[in-house]
Amino acid sequence: MFDLIILGGGPGGYELASNAARKGLKTAIVEKGRFGGTCVTVGCIPSKAFLHAEKVFSEAKEGKNIGINLKEISFDQKQLVKYKDQKVTFLTQAAEMKVKRSGAKIYKGFGKIKETSKAQDFKILINDQEEISGKNLVIATGSEVFYPPIPGLNKNDKTVIDSEKALALFEIPKKLVIMGGGVIGLELGTFFAGIGSEVTIVELAPKIAGPFDYEISLKLQQELEAKKKIKFLLEHKVSEVLNKEVICVDKNDKKIKLPFDKLLVAAGRKPFIKDFGLENLRVYIEKGAIVTDENLKTNVPGLYAIGDVNGKSMLAHTAYREGEIVLENILGNKIKINYDQIPSVIYCTPEVGEIGINEDLAKKQGIEIRTKKIPMLYSGRFVIEVGNYAGKNFDGLLKIILKKSTDEIIGISLLGNYSSEIINMASVLINKRYNSKSLKDVVFAHPTVGEIIKTAILE
Amino acid sequence: MFDLIILGGGPGGYELASNAARKGLKTAIVEKGRFGGTCVTVGCIPSKAFLHAEKVFSEAKEGKNIGINLKEISFDQKQLVKYKDQKVTFLTQAAEMKVKRSGAKIYKGFGKIKETSKAQDFKILINDQEEISGKNLVIATGSEVFYPPIPGLNKNDKTVIDSEKALALFEIPKKLVIMGGGVIGLELGTFFAGIGSEVTIVELAPKIAGPFDYEISLKLQQELEAKKKIKFLLEHKVSEVLNKEVICVDKNDKKIKLPFDKLLVAAGRKPFIKDFGLENLRVYIEKGAIVTDENLKTNVPGLYAIGDVNGKSMLAHTAYREGEIVLENILGNKIKINYDQIPSVIYCTPEVGEIGINEDLAKKQGIEIRTKKIPMLYSGRFVIEVGNYAGKNFDGLLKIILKKSTDEIIGISLLGNYSSEIINMASVLINKRYNSKSLKDVVFAHPTVGEIIKTAILE
Repeated sequence: MFDLIILGGGPGGYELASNAARKGLKTAIVEKGRFGGTCVTVGCIPSKAFLHAEKVFSEAKEGKNIGINLKEISFDQKQLVKYKDQKVTFLTQAAEMKVKRSGAKIYKGFGKIKETSKAQDFKILINDQEEISGKNLVIATGSEVFYPPIPGLNKNDKTVIDSEKALALFEIPKKLVIMGGGVIGLELGTFFAGIGSEVTIVELAPKIAGPFDYEISLKLQQELEAKKKIKFLLEHKVSEVLNKEVICVDKNDKKIKLPFDKLLVAAGRKPFIKDFGLENLRVYIEKGAIVTDENLKTNVPGLYAIGDVNGKSMLAHTAYREGEIVLENILGNKIKINYDQIPSVIYCTPEVGEIGINEDLAKKQGIEIRTKKIPMLYSGRFVIEVGNYAGKNFDGLLKIILKKSTDEIIGISLLGNYSSEIINMASVLINKRYNSKSLKDVVFAHPTVGEIIKTAILE
Repeated sequence: MFDLIILGGGPGGYELASNAARKGLKTAIVEKGRFGGTCVTVGCIPSKAFLHAEKVFSEAKEGKNIGINLKEISFDQKQLVKYKDQKVTFLTQAAEMKVKRSGAKIYKGFGKIKETSKAQDFKILINDQEEISGKNLVIATGSEVFYPPIPGLNKNDKTVIDSEKALALFEIPKKLVIMGGGVIGLELGTFFAGIGSEVTIVELAPKIAGPFDYEISLKLQQELEAKKKIKFLLEHKVSEVLNKEVICVDKNDKKIKLPFDKLLVAAGRKPFIKDFGLENLRVYIEKGAIVTDENLKTNVPGLYAIGDVNGKSMLAHTAYREGEIVLENILGNKIKINYDQIPSVIYCTPEVGEIGINEDLAKKQGIEIRTKKIPMLYSGRFVIEVGNYAGKNFDGLLKIILKKSTDEIIGISLLGNYSSEIINMASVLINKRYNSKSLKDVVFAHPTVGEIIKTAILE
């Protein structure tokens, strides 16, 4: 009998397996494919490899004013996919190795939950052969691409792709239409636009980038329009896929036909809850996701759900964190997760980073705030390295949200490169409840982009 | 009568002027040239513009394995200098504007300190014409290049340059010999090697990078040797400049002749304390620097010295911080500076960042420590973006130093790109006395390089 069985070897699962085993828990982890889950194999890691290549390519092409003279430059998409595959293999092996080293038992195969009548005696059947049992069970099965129910949309059409297929594409589509202006659509749109596709992004909402700060989303859109020539159709609905080359999009009663070489469906992901016997546990499901509380517990004693499968915040580092919370709870420490302290990043150029409460959310929640807002151009490093991007000026934007009653920093939003790394510092600032006074005692390195946080507070 | 007069409009001076005026102090600042000092005009900002261009250039050239195909690429050094000059002009104007907006009075010209008999009644004569007086005086006159007394070394020779001249050079020297393997020598060496020079760095000490962690300095050296083909001659002394094309370097009794097209003198900088009447104040000078205490006070009541001129830590952000301390002290808050909480960065590729106590220093000071040490390859983003540098694997290195008795993080050293921005987070961690337990509660974004700090603590 294991202390803990984990279903799924993605970021949530493999980190938890490793940490639990090292804490002395008898731990098993079941994974049918490669370790690393969506994130490592077909999600954040491959897309960052793509975006990094695009960044190097675009910066070189646009580097005339910093002294870089190119006669001819071209992009070999097949080579990038090959490179990406190598790195993904390295990282999936590293993830598996980490679990092995920890002493957790690895079951490679498909795990199916069986019915049992005893409390905290979970039974998992591996590949219809071996049965293992555990006192605690963690569902970490992740998510799958969501294909919205649109007339004519057939995911088996060769011209219809999703993020997973896009990251394995050998050719560069001439006309790429993307359904969805969230993080996935924006990142892949930036990549393909940067290496030569004509990109159109169709988004149902009146803004891109989902819940990110409104003003920053707008500036990001303007920047992608200006520098990457991406076309945005906001408040537009894809009403029909007419054939393998044309979709119809609507705004109010106006219909537009959009031709494409590839149609990228980036309308989100949905928790993966089928085929593995979840129905045998009588667990609460809401909107297709397993219901969890602040301890990541479900309604079934000893059953937890972490990562995309609980639908709370579909990010790899949320899954890591949720795994940490589960482990502490199994060990008897009733700590809770705080979803306000989870950073989000969009890795386009310009990068976006956000953590905590933004202006829009504060208004919605009725929190009285003070906002410190300055362009990123207040950083000397930004001026010389980023503001110059594509030979045109780009201001960037930083917003720090302070709670009026306590002066505490409760949110930080950034637009401009290096934001993806600066956001970790923002996470520390919010974790330690820094306020405008205590922040002044920190010494930041000059010239960095991150020092702008202090500049904004002092302004 | 001013509350405060500041001599020198570098980072220390202009920030203090702006902050003091906004706090309501009647403030004057005297600057003979452009605002921004060495840092903005001939130091950190121009060198970062150079290094950024070199990075884009090298990454593109070495980008074959990420899909970037180049037929021909060349570097236009003249264009880079032009670009750099534009950005420097923008930033010096921004610095001046900041002071203007604050309400501080700007005196453009050469300020000379006159003798007075009254305490806290400092007199400054501007351009031999106008006299102003102040209750407090802050010396922020910075530093100048140090030319060591070496037979045959003549700074007026056309083939002899220093960092200021190197940053204005229109041509790329074929053979560049650099005297000094500290931050300036390493940064400029990396730049010129990256764009095509054959670079040799001669260093008196048995290691490069001055006080930076020994192991990280060694790995940096190996990386610069392998990827930039820089040649290092450690424990070598430049004994003579034989003529305008050859120097002689010694190790023990072995002498080598080194030919050069340009000889870059990067043997450090010395406080600028002459010509402006400092002798009229009877201030203590030690080893060529104004002596200051933890409040940045000198032996003369009302007289402070900040920035390079006090020789404590010749970094722009140290000067900023010292200015903050001076202002608080003038306002009656006796806060002290903590030189252990000042980050340092080397902006080569690979970048180096360090803050607090490193292993070598801990040993010297007899502090009992625990070290958490992992290669940067533990970060997925590092693997895909940085570890691949130049098509070869590069591991990078992170070291976290914890005080054994308290478990507090007292030092962090990093080698590998993004370190320059991650170091600010490290500064916050040390400022708030994070320990290995409290750090676990912070959620870091994935995939970032910065999240490796948590990975290391959990290992």
